[in-house]
Amino acid sequence: MAKRTSAMNLAFILILLCAPISMFICMGEWEPTWSTRAAEEAEAVAAIPCSGHGRAYLDGLILKGHEHVHVCECNSCNGGSDCFKFLSDCIANASSGDPYFLEPFWMRHAASSAILVSGWHRMSYSYSDGSYISEVLVKYIQKVHSIVGNAITKGRYFIFGSGSTQLFNAAVYALSLNSSVSPAKVVATTPYYPLYRTQTQLFNSRDFSYEGDTSLWKNNTDSNSRFIEFVTSPNNPDGKLTKRVLEGPNVKTIYDRAYYWPHFTAIPSPADEDLMLFTISKLTGHAGSRFGWAIIKDEAVYQKMLIYLQLNTIGVSRDVQLRALKLLDVIVEGDGKEIFQFAYSTMRDRWIRLKQVISESKRFSLQKLSPQYCTFFKRVRDPSPAYAWLKCERQEESNCYEILEAAGIIGREGSDYSADNRYLRLSLIKSQDDFEILINKFKSLVAKEMETQPTIIRSA
Amino acid sequence: MAKRTSAMNLAFILILLCAPISMFICMGEWEPTWSTRAAEEAEAVAAIPCSGHGRAYLDGLILKGHEHVHVCECNSCNGGSDCFKFLSDCIANASSGDPYFLEPFWMRHAASSAILVSGWHRMSYSYSDGSYISEVLVKYIQKVHSIVGNAITKGRYFIFGSGSTQLFNAAVYALSLNSSVSPAKVVATTPYYPLYRTQTQLFNSRDFSYEGDTSLWKNNTDSNSRFIEFVTSPNNPDGKLTKRVLEGPNVKTIYDRAYYWPHFTAIPSPADEDLMLFTISKLTGHAGSRFGWAIIKDEAVYQKMLIYLQLNTIGVSRDVQLRALKLLDVIVEGDGKEIFQFAYSTMRDRWIRLKQVISESKRFSLQKLSPQYCTFFKRVRDPSPAYAWLKCERQEESNCYEILEAAGIIGREGSDYSADNRYLRLSLIKSQDDFEILINKFKSLVAKEMETQPTIIRSA
Repeated sequence: MAKRTSAMNLAFILILLCAPISMFICMGEWEPTWSTRAAEEAEAVAAIPCSGHGRAYLDGLILKGHEHVHVCECNSCNGGSDCFKFLSDCIANASSGDPYFLEPFWMRHAASSAILVSGWHRMSYSYSDGSYISEVLVKYIQKVHSIVGNAITKGRYFIFGSGSTQLFNAAVYALSLNSSVSPAKVVATTPYYPLYRTQTQLFNSRDFSYEGDTSLWKNNTDSNSRFIEFVTSPNNPDGKLTKRVLEGPNVKTIYDRAYYWPHFTAIPSPADEDLMLFTISKLTGHAGSRFGWAIIKDEAVYQKMLIYLQLNTIGVSRDVQLRALKLLDVIVEGDGKEIFQFAYSTMRDRWIRLKQVISESKRFSLQKLSPQYCTFFKRVRDPSPAYAWLKCERQEESNCYEILEAAGIIGREGSDYSADNRYLRLSLIKSQDDFEILINKFKSLVAKEMETQPTIIRSA
Repeated sequence: MAKRTSAMNLAFILILLCAPISMFICMGEWEPTWSTRAAEEAEAVAAIPCSGHGRAYLDGLILKGHEHVHVCECNSCNGGSDCFKFLSDCIANASSGDPYFLEPFWMRHAASSAILVSGWHRMSYSYSDGSYISEVLVKYIQKVHSIVGNAITKGRYFIFGSGSTQLFNAAVYALSLNSSVSPAKVVATTPYYPLYRTQTQLFNSRDFSYEGDTSLWKNNTDSNSRFIEFVTSPNNPDGKLTKRVLEGPNVKTIYDRAYYWPHFTAIPSPADEDLMLFTISKLTGHAGSRFGWAIIKDEAVYQKMLIYLQLNTIGVSRDVQLRALKLLDVIVEGDGKEIFQFAYSTMRDRWIRLKQVISESKRFSLQKLSPQYCTFFKRVRDPSPAYAWLKCERQEESNCYEILEAAGIIGREGSDYSADNRYLRLSLIKSQDDFEILINKFKSLVAKEMETQPTIIRSA
């Protein structure tokens, strides 16, 4: 009781002492006014621990009376209201490309990466220059590329999209317009990211159509048709630094450079293609923000893509551009190397551990990737791909998805990438929890393989 | 000197007194930790007055060393670094549909409408249910519609888009798939919002094509073709509560309900069409956020639109959905009527004032709109359209845009809406500054008309 009275007196003295100095200053520090509620809400959500195996989000909390809201959203093998419970029978879901491996970086940079958006922030359709593209954000993107040395940006045009996803078709549109009498042929080299095909087919355009693998057209491009080749480099799913297959005056190339960051590959030299696509999803890990950019040499192509973006969605949300700006602002802090060092070391560690496990197996194999000189790190560096491109080696195991599924591992079928189903893509960029579960499942699987092998082979 | 020493002593005493209680509590109040920097940045930007004739934004300030950044973005007739200078020779730009008229509402609700977004907010592609659509946000949208009574939402499907803009083509895609042997005919009734045509033409699809005004097809729809009619109600540009023109088993209708809010029209009854589109742009005024939603009756149509959104942009940014949620959270506060009362009273006042000025002119006329019973306000209410649909009445003045431009007023040509150029759209939803300049220009214009008229007519 005495203690309580003393604390109350102390508080009373504080009020008396603070009040005369300033309404907003206490202890010589700045005091917020209208931003307090938002800050309090955000900190309250961030303080929910979810046992370190899940996350609470602001938009799960706002609607307090909502019956369906679970405050903690648990990692895939955790449950309960606080994610404390480990679900022992759960599967290792290595299907999606959710780049949660970068989440710890942002948690460590909580103060510098937070943004407080006022209710009246940028209500207009356009920026003050009349465009839908933040010029300041373009400068930041150029700065990041300049630090990494992975793309030439000087004198280039920039277009923003809702992820690089939206820019695929914007580019196809721009490159196919007035191409020739027949629709432009959109192609890619197996194994390739399925959206090039599905998106192109979705629009069912008179100007372009999806025409399958480049191998069908390799010695056949000097026709009347225009070709538009998608090249993903490093490739999704196999992480290889691929180059275009088709060449010639009728061929246009869209370089998807989503994975061309030190996280996933050596950077041999700055990319300098006519049309390159990047996405924040694989740079900062913010897949959910839907922000990508195109770097374009030709002004006419740029103008056409601008029209596409204007008519499809009237540009990219100003809220998203603000968030991207803030994230890049953190990336370029100091010497601008921290995120790349963190991302590379995380991905390298995962690749080494997975390779170690798989190396003991004769049943499974991984894609071959070699150490390579990297101009960013200024040394030869190990591979650190975003995905494992697993192969089931046994003759009779022609559907690798089913084999792995039976062992509690979910990947994406080879046929999704227009490849043989003997292959399977496994995502290595999810959370550390997800990766640990994946590794443990593989350890069990390979241990079982060892057990069933004849002793004479095991000791060989 | 004595005063300074005394203040320093006071600060020292405060530190000594505060510290033992708690690191985060001073004066009994919650103290922020990692959110402070973001809150400080936001409040610093908001505190820049720009003389009340402009705005400073967070993404204009972040890049402090950037040479091209002007911190204050001034209203169109103000200039100088603090927007204090009035540009006397400036034009009244009533072209864009920037809904700045709602900005004062959000400034008044600064505390409740702010959001603080952490660096690790929703990095995943999907919500915890695997979808790209926040279920909580759907509930909020339903709540707003229920307060206003402008749409039936129970048992309906919801799709989100980057503005309703993206949903136009998503709907056309879904309604035209497998329609028949020939491409579906997309039509609208003059005067109509130009994006229906330009967007449909952009995609140059094999499944649909733009086929002009509904009048061409009114008695001609029982053919083999499917028709997709866009109906904007209230209409952009003329504010009329239009209905569909085409009927029959081959006709599908997309109701663009962007303006069906008490801001702009009476609400005679809740809309209950098969496919309705709404946008936050004309509800809260956040055009720059790019957020719209479709309300759909038919599950098959919903599924097709889902696929479209997935393949076009992988849904709508989670950042944008968070912002929309927060804005709607403010709207539904209390009895949920405040924003509608504010918006209606602003728009009604503007319409009355413009009508008053134009009523003295024989050279110009406005669209006729009548008071109507509104189920939201539970009384007959005056018109309050978003746009004036001005007509130049003189035989010889067939290009109304040029006539107004010469008088320093910029609108949008009738031909943009596939109407006669004797008409011009003038935006009434911009900032109060913009509206005042528009009114003043019209006053001068009408005063000149009076001066040149014979006295006998003037006194009639």
